[in-house]
Amino acid sequence: MLRVGIAGLGTVGGGLIGLLRGTLAERLGDRLVIDAVSARNRGRSRGVDISAYRWFDDPCELAADPSIDVLVELIGGSDGPARRAVTIALTRGARVVTANKALLAEHGAELAALVDAHGGALAFEAAVGGGVPVIKVLRESLAANRTTSISGILNGTCNYILSTMEAQGREFADVLAEAQRLGYAEADPSFDVDGMDAGHKIALLAAIAFGNVPSVAALETHGIRDVSLLDIRLAAKLGYRIKLIATAERSPQGVRTRVAPALVPFAHPLAGIGGALNAVVISASPVGVITLTGAGAGAGPTASAVASDLIDIVEGDVRLPFGVSADRLGQPVAAGGAGDEERAFLRLLVDDRPGVIAAVSNALAKHGVSIDALIQDPSAAVGAVPIVLTTHRRDVRAIDAAVADIGVLDAVTAPPLVMRIEDIPRTVT
Amino acid sequence: MLRVGIAGLGTVGGGLIGLLRGTLAERLGDRLVIDAVSARNRGRSRGVDISAYRWFDDPCELAADPSIDVLVELIGGSDGPARRAVTIALTRGARVVTANKALLAEHGAELAALVDAHGGALAFEAAVGGGVPVIKVLRESLAANRTTSISGILNGTCNYILSTMEAQGREFADVLAEAQRLGYAEADPSFDVDGMDAGHKIALLAAIAFGNVPSVAALETHGIRDVSLLDIRLAAKLGYRIKLIATAERSPQGVRTRVAPALVPFAHPLAGIGGALNAVVISASPVGVITLTGAGAGAGPTASAVASDLIDIVEGDVRLPFGVSADRLGQPVAAGGAGDEERAFLRLLVDDRPGVIAAVSNALAKHGVSIDALIQDPSAAVGAVPIVLTTHRRDVRAIDAAVADIGVLDAVTAPPLVMRIEDIPRTVT
Repeated sequence: MLRVGIAGLGTVGGGLIGLLRGTLAERLGDRLVIDAVSARNRGRSRGVDISAYRWFDDPCELAADPSIDVLVELIGGSDGPARRAVTIALTRGARVVTANKALLAEHGAELAALVDAHGGALAFEAAVGGGVPVIKVLRESLAANRTTSISGILNGTCNYILSTMEAQGREFADVLAEAQRLGYAEADPSFDVDGMDAGHKIALLAAIAFGNVPSVAALETHGIRDVSLLDIRLAAKLGYRIKLIATAERSPQGVRTRVAPALVPFAHPLAGIGGALNAVVISASPVGVITLTGAGAGAGPTASAVASDLIDIVEGDVRLPFGVSADRLGQPVAAGGAGDEERAFLRLLVDDRPGVIAAVSNALAKHGVSIDALIQDPSAAVGAVPIVLTTHRRDVRAIDAAVADIGVLDAVTAPPLVMRIEDIPRTVT
Repeated sequence: MLRVGIAGLGTVGGGLIGLLRGTLAERLGDRLVIDAVSARNRGRSRGVDISAYRWFDDPCELAADPSIDVLVELIGGSDGPARRAVTIALTRGARVVTANKALLAEHGAELAALVDAHGGALAFEAAVGGGVPVIKVLRESLAANRTTSISGILNGTCNYILSTMEAQGREFADVLAEAQRLGYAEADPSFDVDGMDAGHKIALLAAIAFGNVPSVAALETHGIRDVSLLDIRLAAKLGYRIKLIATAERSPQGVRTRVAPALVPFAHPLAGIGGALNAVVISASPVGVITLTGAGAGAGPTASAVASDLIDIVEGDVRLPFGVSADRLGQPVAAGGAGDEERAFLRLLVDDRPGVIAAVSNALAKHGVSIDALIQDPSAAVGAVPIVLTTHRRDVRAIDAAVADIGVLDAVTAPPLVMRIEDIPRTVT
């Protein structure tokens, strides 16, 4: 019999208790039982009866209790009680299931080393993609593959905001305020809309797929605050939809991880992912391109993922957190190294005067960046004339240098917005 | 050390040997080694050197060899040597990995009983969806869920034909002939185009998701031979794309499994699956809707799936073939029971004379079937006037009865074509 202690009793914890006592009760029998729980407020109404479980005010005491075989950590936060409780449990060789992406992205290598040293386990299917089983697919189903790249929509809040801006023709600030009123976005939305939440998730996927240390330091993150309705409309004219895309890919320099708004062609598997859905596209050899889609958050999907980790433990299926032992994990590289090429979308606001396009073209040509398509759209009444253009493939540093030159032109009235254009993934062999 | 014997050395077998000696060699070390192989023709050139392995002319002798711990069966066919070899291996408690959907769909319960009796294992990730890890996701990732329905595009040949008909404006027979010339379709294409291949696959998914005996007898199969370019074009006018859809769903009578061409709304996750891709949409509670997409066939994707089963065995992760012991598997129901409701698309070819639409409407009304949309399209020059209509939800038997009445009307010049309209899957809770 495995005794479970649950630290953190929010909606996910409540959902998990419901599953273990409901759908899973017969299947698990007495192989796995809830023994103890911990939360900040014992008296809070949760919709589930927790009176049969031992209560701990302090999650660290729960984690230290030698009769707890499996700690389920649902507290959240990269440090503080979550980190302390998980560290305590792993140090005594207990098994830990967590949904805490921030903790793992910041301290994953350190925690994996504790698993290696003390023989416990660390499972975190719920940390990325909610109910979308991307961790298990990467770690187990694609175990025979060499991954080339992963790209995904991993933050439901941003995807909801961008989808709603497009569908309802509204600006970012307006949609964000409504999402906050409706509870879809946090009172402080920066973690979501500036890209760090998706960044934590792609750092974890990269660690598993490429066998490297999960690293926030190596992440490049750009949020969606600067994406305007005008950008969405002009991108659509060129055949693209703007999404917040998290990517991890091999480059000549190593593994590059990054989160940024990007243009995806309408035929790209990520273009049709609407609302608060999550999706991940994995390119690997010899399997080709695999796409997984589903609900990226919410009590039900997250509890489903936590429960699948618990069932794996019951079935004796315990894998190393990042596929290899912690001392064999490689180091990712910071983004933007030489040799990384991409196509770019560039949006400028310019004064309507002769020679502007010539000046912009010259700045691009100077850095060897050639133009694929260009739209000058005087119909958009924003006080200046918008110009959008797409480039052919070129070294990222050359594109950045050209954009810097363009940004200081007299006729350019606002900082240029530059976004990467995602290619349709092709089977790699 | 686990000793593997591979029976069947086609492109998948060759790809598997390449993976085990290449990408996986370091990871597996001497935990898993290829010991012996068997195929029909020892001398055939395969692009891989098999001289280091023991050779068996007879796969049954390979399966019976006590030093073989894991039999990989890549022979194919529901009976004959594949069935005999797998039965021999399981009867002596060996582990079996197979890509053989026909064998499992026809004899899965019998083989699962051998696993229960003798303590071996039977894994078959490659049998459904090629490289798409739908078996593991259903059995492990969604283990805490109650599945409501599964719908998928599981036959790449049919999807290629339908996609090409639409994209190039060509008829079925023409595209099929070309696919045969290019090697995308078999010389005898009936197994694919009449729906049995997809049927075997959905029978396996249903068995895992719903805990029932995989059953070909309970399957309802309709192929794509009767789908014309006209149908594709008229469906598109109404907002739908025609796909060969395999479904398994709970109904009041039990689990219903069926393969048939169906209309999917353009916004449905299966509508955008083009070419030879496979995709599966799983609706389950509490996870919601999960969609998996990837290459459904080919040496690389299939070898990737077989290798993932082997890695699971090396890692000690062995699950029951259909999630529960064979004696606890339920019985699926034959399709079309009372109470199953659906929306239908109906295409008629009629003489252009007064009163035809009235007669059709009356036949529908008599059975309580109400019309949602109707197009009469005289522009399609096929010698008769096509009428297409969609219905509101109604009991399948009432729709079938109305179609039978319509089919015998004087003005109706060809057998009516009726197809189900798939709903956009919504999260179930």
